Amino acid sequence: MMEHPKTELRQDPVSGEWVLLSTVRARRPNQFARSKKEKSPPRAACPFEDPQKSGNGSPLLWFVHPQKRKKGDVVVLRDWFLQVIRNKYPALSHHYKTCPTLIRDGVGAYMQGVGFHEVVVTSPHSRSIAHMSVEEVELIIRAYQERIHDLSAEKCLEYVLVFHNHGREAGASIYHPHSQLIALPIVPADVHVSIQGSRRYYHRKRRCVHCDIIRWERRKKERVLYKNKSFILLAPHVSKAAFEMRIYPLKHQSRFESIATKDRPLLADVLIAALRSIYRGLNDIAYNYFIHTTPFGRGHFDHYHWHLEILPKTATFGGVELGTGLEIVTVSPEDAAQYLRRFVSK
Amino acid sequence: MMEHPKTELRQDPVSGEWVLLSTVRARRPNQFARSKKEKSPPRAACPFEDPQKSGNGSPLLWFVHPQKRKKGDVVVLRDWFLQVIRNKYPALSHHYKTCPTLIRDGVGAYMQGVGFHEVVVTSPHSRSIAHMSVEEVELIIRAYQERIHDLSAEKCLEYVLVFHNHGREAGASIYHPHSQLIALPIVPADVHVSIQGSRRYYHRKRRCVHCDIIRWERRKKERVLYKNKSFILLAPHVSKAAFEMRIYPLKHQSRFESIATKDRPLLADVLIAALRSIYRGLNDIAYNYFIHTTPFGRGHFDHYHWHLEILPKTATFGGVELGTGLEIVTVSPEDAAQYLRRFVSK
Repeated sequence: MMEHPKTELRQDPVSGEWVLLSTVRARRPNQFARSKKEKSPPRAACPFEDPQKSGNGSPLLWFVHPQKRKKGDVVVLRDWFLQVIRNKYPALSHHYKTCPTLIRDGVGAYMQGVGFHEVVVTSPHSRSIAHMSVEEVELIIRAYQERIHDLSAEKCLEYVLVFHNHGREAGASIYHPHSQLIALPIVPADVHVSIQGSRRYYHRKRRCVHCDIIRWERRKKERVLYKNKSFILLAPHVSKAAFEMRIYPLKHQSRFESIATKDRPLLADVLIAALRSIYRGLNDIAYNYFIHTTPFGRGHFDHYHWHLEILPKTATFGGVELGTGLEIVTVSPEDAAQYLRRFVSK
Repeated sequence: MMEHPKTELRQDPVSGEWVLLSTVRARRPNQFARSKKEKSPPRAACPFEDPQKSGNGSPLLWFVHPQKRKKGDVVVLRDWFLQVIRNKYPALSHHYKTCPTLIRDGVGAYMQGVGFHEVVVTSPHSRSIAHMSVEEVELIIRAYQERIHDLSAEKCLEYVLVFHNHGREAGASIYHPHSQLIALPIVPADVHVSIQGSRRYYHRKRRCVHCDIIRWERRKKERVLYKNKSFILLAPHVSKAAFEMRIYPLKHQSRFESIATKDRPLLADVLIAALRSIYRGLNDIAYNYFIHTTPFGRGHFDHYHWHLEILPKTATFGGVELGTGLEIVTVSPEDAAQYLRRFVSK
């Protein structure tokens, strides 16, 4: 792989933004790895080992382990497999009664940062999603859905981002596997650009841009890593990072929280496949994943197609990325798909 | 400082984008430092110690050290203080005769990544800009100007980004101090958004948004770190990173390359002041700086006001930043300015 160095600018059909594919300095895949392999810190010091003992409030939602849940059993929190708690150090303040108003002062504009910041913790201490069973990951997905649904009923909020940081280099300050939800009173820039681009495309073609991307990728095949009955895993033509992957529902669906119960195990299956390929193929390199879904607010969002983006931490952002938003990708998505494909299967 | 935790969303008057100021997890300034203090690698192994010996071509531009340049002296490359060379591993390909055309394939759109990638190397090996003299930094600025000017005459190009990565954590793969220029056949997203925002403001108010920002900040004073006759250094109200700084020319000026010779030492003075405050106040933490200036192409850009942005590497991007473009800043620009101000002076 990577025998023909390539220098190519690719334009995202949704956002209109460019990425620069430049493989001249590409490393071989086995050169990617967590630079300092993080050791699992002792359980005793972990704030998520027993969240309530560590001073967190009662869970907003919790599930016992699928294997511990037998019919007729009394479920007790002690047997939790997953719990959603409020972040003890929330980036947003949930102490608000009225919606914040934009205050202007000269050219400055600001408002109170109201919203919610929650953590989805799973047990045990050091098993990441790549090693979980379909039943376990199904519960994670269900927790995301239920919390998005609940938060959408809170006043003043416009968007909720679900995200997962794996590894210190991807911003995970706590080792114990966890995802986060951050519910905001604004639609953030990247989501706005993605929604607007999708809307523009829809108005022009009367088709969903993401459906067109899926159709095109299925025909081309070279960037598809995995597929089951309801979901597809691919390396996007316009990848923003080496080995980026994206999960789409095959059938058009605007809201992540609308996933049918019968589709949950299928999404779990494809998410595990993706994260397993990073674990095996890229030496457990750090990564982030996040979900782009429809904002809460009124407005027509039916054109939007939710998706889950996975970004392995393969590079350090430098002046180019920070100064332009243009990202330099050193491995082509075609090579990435070819390489990772063999690590996807069980 | 940092006694009152704050949670505030601030909207950029130029781009319309939001940052989230959330000081609840702020660290004290003395907790910021390069996580693993990089040691200066041996000179013998450094590819920039003698660029030509390391296989680089003749410099595109070079200056001898100001102190070595006496009137009447013959200048020889051996005495170089600064040289601009082509990047040996360029992210863009300068082998092109005709301008690239956008190729469409389904929903995909791409073109050849043509352009130039240059490196501005200074000597000696381990003296960063924070420790240079005004005369030395003047030459760096002059090199930026001359190269931007020259590259603007190349065909097919639309933008040149000047940037500087200091420290491995900021993406500097080579220790030896150097800046880079990357000349592109497109206007990248962040620059486009900045230009468009500035234009919209101008059409509405018939004033430059950056001039208004400067006027406002000079009145407020709390975010101003330093000022000389021609330039101002401030911590922007909408900072994207803790301890972000920005340099503006006080008088409206669209193009960086138009800086008058007499203003060059003044810009050098303020740039040194800024980087010295990082060196002293933040334990030589890694940083990036870059210049936002006017694109090459035709069109009216007189409304634009060039500026130089300095982003200390105080945080790791996680899922929030990657998934939303919304950045979480843990130190308010007001606190940052108050703290760094004392490290600015000589």
